[in-house]
Amino acid sequence: MRSETARLEAFSDGVFAIAITLLIIEIHVPAREHAETLGHELLRIWPSYLGYLTSFLTIGVMWINHHYVFELIGRVDRTMLLLNTLLLMMIAFVPFPTAVLAQFIETDGARAAAALYGATLTLTSIAFFAWWRYASTERRLIREEVPDDVVNDITRAYTPGTLLYGGAALIAFLQPWLSAALYLGIAVFYALPLAQWRERLARS
Amino acid sequence: MRSETARLEAFSDGVFAIAITLLIIEIHVPAREHAETLGHELLRIWPSYLGYLTSFLTIGVMWINHHYVFELIGRVDRTMLLLNTLLLMMIAFVPFPTAVLAQFIETDGARAAAALYGATLTLTSIAFFAWWRYASTERRLIREEVPDDVVNDITRAYTPGTLLYGGAALIAFLQPWLSAALYLGIAVFYALPLAQWRERLARS
Amino acid sequence: MRSETARLEAFSDGVFAIAITLLIIEIHVPAREHAETLGHELLRIWPSYLGYLTSFLTIGVMWINHHYVFELIGRVDRTMLLLNTLLLMMIAFVPFPTAVLAQFIETDGARAAAALYGATLTLTSIAFFAWWRYASTERRLIREEVPDDVVNDITRAYTPGTLLYGGAALIAFLQPWLSAALYLGIAVFYALPLAQWRERLARS
Amino acid sequence: MRSETARLEAFSDGVFAIAITLLIIEIHVPAREHAETLGHELLRIWPSYLGYLTSFLTIGVMWINHHYVFELIGRVDRTMLLLNTLLLMMIAFVPFPTAVLAQFIETDGARAAAALYGATLTLTSIAFFAWWRYASTERRLIREEVPDDVVNDITRAYTPGTLLYGGAALIAFLQPWLSAALYLGIAVFYALPLAQWRERLARS
Repeated sequence: MRSETARLEAFSDGVFAIAITLLIIEIHVPAREHAETLGHELLRIWPSYLGYLTSFLTIGVMWINHHYVFELIGRVDRTMLLLNTLLLMMIAFVPFPTAVLAQFIETDGARAAAALYGATLTLTSIAFFAWWRYASTERRLIREEVPDDVVNDITRAYTPGTLLYGGAALIAFLQPWLSAALYLGIAVFYALPLAQWRERLARS
Repeated sequence: MRSETARLEAFSDGVFAIAITLLIIEIHVPAREHAETLGHELLRIWPSYLGYLTSFLTIGVMWINHHYVFELIGRVDRTMLLLNTLLLMMIAFVPFPTAVLAQFIETDGARAAAALYGATLTLTSIAFFAWWRYASTERRLIREEVPDDVVNDITRAYTPGTLLYGGAALIAFLQPWLSAALYLGIAVFYALPLAQWRERLARS
Repeated sequence: MRSETARLEAFSDGVFAIAITLLIIEIHVPAREHAETLGHELLRIWPSYLGYLTSFLTIGVMWINHHYVFELIGRVDRTMLLLNTLLLMMIAFVPFPTAVLAQFIETDGARAAAALYGATLTLTSIAFFAWWRYASTERRLIREEVPDDVVNDITRAYTPGTLLYGGAALIAFLQPWLSAALYLGIAVFYALPLAQWRERLARS
Repeated sequence: MRSETARLEAFSDGVFAIAITLLIIEIHVPAREHAETLGHELLRIWPSYLGYLTSFLTIGVMWINHHYVFELIGRVDRTMLLLNTLLLMMIAFVPFPTAVLAQFIETDGARAAAALYGATLTLTSIAFFAWWRYASTERRLIREEVPDDVVNDITRAYTPGTLLYGGAALIAFLQPWLSAALYLGIAVFYALPLAQWRERLARS
């Protein structure tokens, strides 16, 4: 028998690992008739590669964060199990808008595709925030030895994420390309080891 | 060498995590020709989103239950391995009826689709019940320190699940939409932290 | 740092769990035009359900065996890593012949499909045997505390598997249906808790 | 709470296991109309089988190496998390070029397909090298008890991999078949228990 938190953590890690690896099956092998111009065809689908990169970094960063805050959790209850399931449901959903965005960014469907992608990440980041607020409010599920400062810092660090994604989703209706660039930019920004910068953003 | 139950639990967790994450690959990216009306097209496939939500919650709740009762199990034998394999076989099957239901709920195939979905969940819940009955009858595989009350409570709590799913499956032949709504309702009911309500149902 | 055998075991469990769960994606949702006769269409693809059942039980039993013999292994070396990789390569291959068999058992391609399925399981069982022989010859990787009897019993118990699958694969060329029935029969036979019967077969 | 390295290791193992098992879904079941000549059709797609073998061995060997060097790591930092995510992103990408190479090796697209495959493995091996260099430079993340010799040996052993894959990728533009044969040869060479040979290569 493992501890309750260890099992929930392992199950969550499994879903993260599968969702991130499934991203590849949305990049489709060109049809046989492209044989003569395969090199050109493989370059033409560059939005698929960028989409793969963006979503891989995004889910990767979310895993790192999930993993980091989970270490502060001392026990789980039924509500926590539900909130964690909702969060995983959003994470596992990401391959779909990724494929939609890659397929339609160069078409008239770019607005709708970029908005879907942004809406998904906004909901994901709201789910993450709800998860954390439930766990941290009045230190409900937090380990005793974790100082209050750490808890407050995380709460502050989470707020900009939702705003950034929500903003990028709104921009999608005006400038879908800019919006797509922002998704990649946000992922890179959070992936890079720029702890000081992120802190500054959280404080502002 | 991990303990026998720990390994079976980890393997089962793996299958649950993969089955739940695979649900997304049944939501198909719209074809290229929908570029101009992509927004409309993405809304039109709402049954796919609801199907995803329903099955994600359903498998999620089953994982939570599996996980909970597994903590009461002290050892496994060959029969248990077989029953657990059958249960996992049903869980891993769920993405198929989910996709069928989402694709056909708005067509003449709604009855057959809703019945297939209900039949799958009914069988899953029978497999779960058989698993538990084998483990718990005369406390065959139950840890010594688990009180009889806990075992009896679980046995009682499991019965309504099979009846609910069986009933919703029968309703599928008359009112497929009602049946689909029931599947979602049951999943939400079990996912919400309504312990007292579930207990009341189990006692009735 | 986990022990070397624990990590190899966990990685192998992961591949088994994914291969077994991927079986479902080879059962295809009927096309939209079947809406009016969906019930009939869902029954018509029964070979897919039987294929799913057969391969799920087969991989499930192989996982149970892999898991069981791994407990006797005290250390791994480079050759063992290679043999285990080859075994996993065969296990992960099973979804392909399963789908081929389900699709072609009712057509002129039944012979080739049943032979492919049988060849895959025969090779899998040879890979398993090689794995075990390498580990057990002169007790190369066996834990000290495991008695010789246990090692010899396993060696004997493995031999009929290869012969059974090889035989069923040959029958495929004459009677593909009989061959398919044998694959299911073998899986059920090994899955059922019939320890005494299996032992009798191993001794003959 | 597991140790930081144990969780990163388990997450990485998950991605490796899923990527390696997903290789099978790129081997497509022949279409129904091939029923009469199914045996011939199943032989005709031999490049898919060879691609499966090559990529399975390649990812398998990379898992073994990842696993081996991870045992020398005592702690992880934010940069390490990013580098590991990039490495996993390359590993999870492998099923795509594998499918492209299998589909186009016998067509006019062979050059582009073989170059894509080689470019992917070259980038993967650069990602691996960067990962290791970051961890090992001035023993940044290395456990105290690991001798300097072991660290230096690994650094030397990694260099030829990148050169071999880069070379094979360049050959793709002239002789795609030779290049494909080299990918398989390199995988077999590293998979076989030829420790002395690999050491000799590393020293040259």
